[in-house]
Amino acid sequence: MSILIKDATIITQNNSRDQLQADIFIDGNIISKIGKNLNDKSDETIDAGGKIAIPGLVNTHAHVAMTLFRSYADDLPLNQWLEQKIWPAEAKQTSKDVEISSKLAFCEMIRGGTTSFVEMCIHDTKPIFKAANEIGMRGIIAQAALDFGDHSKSKDVMNKIKPTADYAVGNINASIAAHAPNTCSEELLIKTKELADQKHLLYQIHVSETRQEVFDILKTKGKYPVEYLDSIGIADKNSIFIHCGWLTKHEISLLGNNSVTVSSCPVSNLKLATGGIAQLTELDKSGALVTLGTDSAASNNSLSMFESMKFAGLLQRHHYWKSDVITAQKIFDFATINGAKALGINGGSIEAGKLADIVLLEPGSNLRPRNDLLAHLVYSGGPQNVSDVIIDGKIVLRNRKMQTIDEEKLYSEVESMVSLKE
Amino acid sequence: MSILIKDATIITQNNSRDQLQADIFIDGNIISKIGKNLNDKSDETIDAGGKIAIPGLVNTHAHVAMTLFRSYADDLPLNQWLEQKIWPAEAKQTSKDVEISSKLAFCEMIRGGTTSFVEMCIHDTKPIFKAANEIGMRGIIAQAALDFGDHSKSKDVMNKIKPTADYAVGNINASIAAHAPNTCSEELLIKTKELADQKHLLYQIHVSETRQEVFDILKTKGKYPVEYLDSIGIADKNSIFIHCGWLTKHEISLLGNNSVTVSSCPVSNLKLATGGIAQLTELDKSGALVTLGTDSAASNNSLSMFESMKFAGLLQRHHYWKSDVITAQKIFDFATINGAKALGINGGSIEAGKLADIVLLEPGSNLRPRNDLLAHLVYSGGPQNVSDVIIDGKIVLRNRKMQTIDEEKLYSEVESMVSLKE
Repeated sequence: MSILIKDATIITQNNSRDQLQADIFIDGNIISKIGKNLNDKSDETIDAGGKIAIPGLVNTHAHVAMTLFRSYADDLPLNQWLEQKIWPAEAKQTSKDVEISSKLAFCEMIRGGTTSFVEMCIHDTKPIFKAANEIGMRGIIAQAALDFGDHSKSKDVMNKIKPTADYAVGNINASIAAHAPNTCSEELLIKTKELADQKHLLYQIHVSETRQEVFDILKTKGKYPVEYLDSIGIADKNSIFIHCGWLTKHEISLLGNNSVTVSSCPVSNLKLATGGIAQLTELDKSGALVTLGTDSAASNNSLSMFESMKFAGLLQRHHYWKSDVITAQKIFDFATINGAKALGINGGSIEAGKLADIVLLEPGSNLRPRNDLLAHLVYSGGPQNVSDVIIDGKIVLRNRKMQTIDEEKLYSEVESMVSLKE
Repeated sequence: MSILIKDATIITQNNSRDQLQADIFIDGNIISKIGKNLNDKSDETIDAGGKIAIPGLVNTHAHVAMTLFRSYADDLPLNQWLEQKIWPAEAKQTSKDVEISSKLAFCEMIRGGTTSFVEMCIHDTKPIFKAANEIGMRGIIAQAALDFGDHSKSKDVMNKIKPTADYAVGNINASIAAHAPNTCSEELLIKTKELADQKHLLYQIHVSETRQEVFDILKTKGKYPVEYLDSIGIADKNSIFIHCGWLTKHEISLLGNNSVTVSSCPVSNLKLATGGIAQLTELDKSGALVTLGTDSAASNNSLSMFESMKFAGLLQRHHYWKSDVITAQKIFDFATINGAKALGINGGSIEAGKLADIVLLEPGSNLRPRNDLLAHLVYSGGPQNVSDVIIDGKIVLRNRKMQTIDEEKLYSEVESMVSLKE
């Protein structure tokens, strides 16, 4: 299968961050050529005249199985929301619920220009692999290990998650996750990291999301969360530390020195009122790999990476009372090349030899006039602009129509699982 | 002209905030009937099965003439941005630029579910009246009075803006505006307010947007900005105080006691890093009429009221570290019935006898499943959901196509005014 995209304005995200007016030729799952007036024979031709081509966005923190909980139990404090509402609801989910919920998430992601995702789930992850593969997403999926600090349960937990380390299908790989430093025993944290290293898998963990967590770890371990995780060998370049809203300067240095990936989820942090703003500029300068995530539809409540980019950029400005604290280019890097690097994907930019994960945007009224396109993408773009999405050289959205799933049928299944609030 | 909307899920915003599954009959510019299985003869019938009907959103602070400056001179401190970039650029604008810029804004507004707007402009406002009337918006427009504190110029300024007080066309009325307490002499502030009162027009003014403004007024007048404006008779129910990000408790009481309208523009405040978060809950409780605005595309950079609702709600949560500080219903009220009340419009809700300003939304993937629709609208909705828009009983957007303007032609005109950044 080959695709020729004609006459796009390409935000390449190459090393010199070029913007080109050119054609893109995709051969199989790889971008093979970029240039003016290409006339290679192709199976499909897309006229992108007037459109903007960007690398697919990478969402480094999601819980797609929770999408059915969108706007369910809003307006509660985080602990109450999680412990009294979300966890009991999750406990009732069947495999079918998880699959349908995931499919809904992937449709929303694709329609929002996201082509790769990182998932953490409390259920067995097989239905998510199935859903992601059917729809054509790229990503990694982990079942979160969680023993609520009771190390006597860690063996059972490890037995439960071990098989998931070998799951793989299409462009979806396994990952290993521990829920958080204050919800896992030290034994479980170490064993899960050992499993990840042994299987050469990425490791995910929520870190410093709430002040409560920081206080708890400081009290029980005598260290701040990142210091603690570093002391037990978990803070390395194969780890994704999610949130990081409450860091000391020393923790920022540690994350930088160890080249840890940080997944900042600004919308979720505000929604749950955790109070913490991840210091993205300092983290980036320190050498940490800064990326962005939406978190779940239950705590966002959308899965739009355009929105997460805007919140990320604006919250840095607000936090420092400084409107030049971060550039739109840097924010866009977080959502594209940094995300791809975190996942170990040969992507995140539109260059010959890179994986063909490409999103076409119609400027509409909200991305005009053509002043600074990077600022447009970060501060004015949205799902309304996404017309076509290619993942791994396959067209999954064409002229705003999903090509890999019957959305109307999916929506019927989604609505049959919940009843309209009267 | 009559329109029958069949089988919509209606977010009525009536006094009991009912959500109904029903038909809506529009006769002329008025909603004449709401009920099940209406079979009144109509000129147009819209099948809204599966769709959500909401009252048109009201944007109480915009500078539509600045839309061509979207993503122009981003990443600068507010004063530098305004004085070195925006004002010089504005000075070069022709009437045609203002008209084209306004049309671009109105297309974006309508595609984002906004049906009414409040405009403040430094130019003569006639081209904006023309653009708004052609496209079919509802709103008020003022040319801002501004003498940079030099009262010797106030007479000339008054002579310039006086004629605009008599402009009116279609559903667009005039309004009177003074730029801000620290950019206008006291004489100009008083004269503009007198003109507004004499002509029975709404009065707009930026208030307490920046700390600098608060310091300046405190230093020169010995009062905080709202106290000062109250002392010279400007803080009343016919005034819209824009921003209000840096208020004392006493100023909040004053705004409440005087029933002043507050237009909070959370996205713009973050973008310009003013540091201030308007205390919407306290303002609402005090009796002030809280509404939302986008501010201009130059400082937002979108004109999406969905986005402004989300930022407004999430910033309250963040500011107070309290996830139940404000409900989605309250935020939606700010953007609908409160906005309509501020403008003196018989609208803001879908009820028999109200003006027919109605937006239909397709749930797509991002407004599913149907848990809490209010939370969906505020925290997950966006322009991607807007399929049909009716203003004053006229269909201006039908099946995602603008009915009152040739958008492609407009876009050509827009792009011919600026060159693609190379």
